[in-house]
Amino acid sequence: MTQDTLTRPDTETQFPVTPRNKVKRMHERGSYDRAVIYPILDAAFLCHVSYVIDGQPFATPTIHWREGDTLYWHGSSASRMLRHLKAGMPACLTVAHLDGLVLARCGFNHSANYRSAMCFGIARLVEDPDEKAAALTALVDRFFPGRDATLRPSTAQEIKATTVIAMEIDEASAKVRAKGVGDDEEDLNLPIWAGVIPVRTVIGTTETSPHVPAGIPVPDPLKVYAEGTPLDAALLAAQRIYEGA
Amino acid sequence: MTQDTLTRPDTETQFPVTPRNKVKRMHERGSYDRAVIYPILDAAFLCHVSYVIDGQPFATPTIHWREGDTLYWHGSSASRMLRHLKAGMPACLTVAHLDGLVLARCGFNHSANYRSAMCFGIARLVEDPDEKAAALTALVDRFFPGRDATLRPSTAQEIKATTVIAMEIDEASAKVRAKGVGDDEEDLNLPIWAGVIPVRTVIGTTETSPHVPAGIPVPDPLKVYAEGTPLDAALLAAQRIYEGA
Repeated sequence: MTQDTLTRPDTETQFPVTPRNKVKRMHERGSYDRAVIYPILDAAFLCHVSYVIDGQPFATPTIHWREGDTLYWHGSSASRMLRHLKAGMPACLTVAHLDGLVLARCGFNHSANYRSAMCFGIARLVEDPDEKAAALTALVDRFFPGRDATLRPSTAQEIKATTVIAMEIDEASAKVRAKGVGDDEEDLNLPIWAGVIPVRTVIGTTETSPHVPAGIPVPDPLKVYAEGTPLDAALLAAQRIYEGA
Repeated sequence: MTQDTLTRPDTETQFPVTPRNKVKRMHERGSYDRAVIYPILDAAFLCHVSYVIDGQPFATPTIHWREGDTLYWHGSSASRMLRHLKAGMPACLTVAHLDGLVLARCGFNHSANYRSAMCFGIARLVEDPDEKAAALTALVDRFFPGRDATLRPSTAQEIKATTVIAMEIDEASAKVRAKGVGDDEEDLNLPIWAGVIPVRTVIGTTETSPHVPAGIPVPDPLKVYAEGTPLDAALLAAQRIYEGA
């Protein structure tokens, strides 16, 4: 984006606002602040990455992680986007959390509570062996603190079979709705039920693999994933531990 | 897609398999069967729609619903894609459910349990007034059985301010992982913990809007969203009621 298309410049805390990331619909729900966007990204295990191959858009669900202003995700060396990545390709990585269904007195005011973040940049293949090794460690440790060092080391073939993709975030925006029903003033007394049905993603009971030898307990750092913990809180806690390490 | 690019033809139960929707990575997890794909779509409230504007891909989270082989979603008339939709634009609509985090004895075998579906087609603006009115009714009733008839009717201005987009599914695929840890045979006896951390999205306690007059109960059909119900089961139940209506 050239300077003359910017409607607000880049700063230490805020991403620039451009025609690409400007929140158009319900713009009062939008933010360009790293302090709003990053916790939305870090609280999710799954994202959707959008890219274009021969004019065809794809939205691919995948696991992402973040180091500062850089997003990472991985794929297999058989992935269809690989051959396009060497040159760098424009991408959009989006995270969305559903928090509730909102039922109003008219169809138009029905809504959802959610937290979403969209990030734009140029996706590139991580080819440098050191950057790739660090990324593969991060892919484990960012979610499961300290786990990588406890594992059987990766083989050369495993590393070769894994593609790591990085994208420095050039622009990003968040959009959040977190409130009750937005009925029109004149609808408030109508004898129609309205309300919010909350939705929450939570951790279940950890299932130990039947092949694990007796006496090997669930590792301590996995306590962030204790049963009943909201997934977003667990992932934020894991990210905080990872960043503190 | 022309016939010569098809690797498997369209049938009543299965979508065709083409270079676009062929599951490349972990292809044993793939399916092209409507009976696998539709329940994945119908079990989700949020999808991600990918489209391209001036070479830039976007992955936009939104609410979708399905009528047979046609997907619908909506936006505002201020949406950035509107001006491109009149002519029809290639799109990809993806749904992904996270079911668990899978921790193995090496980094490479770490995985996730998930159910995902990717649908390809040409997105078009719904301009016919009757089709648009029917779609706006479906947008309410598909999620909240019978609710539309109980609401304050939409105004002409509300209908005008809402964009409805339709996409006939030309090709689609599902990808599902639903199992335990996939450790290598030679890693099975390593003294490292491995297992699955299940994840579930569930309904919370319904919150009635403070403006609802006394004596107006939660409508009966909303019982599909009873507290503790998995969201996917609730949405499938609502879709079944909608299709039966």
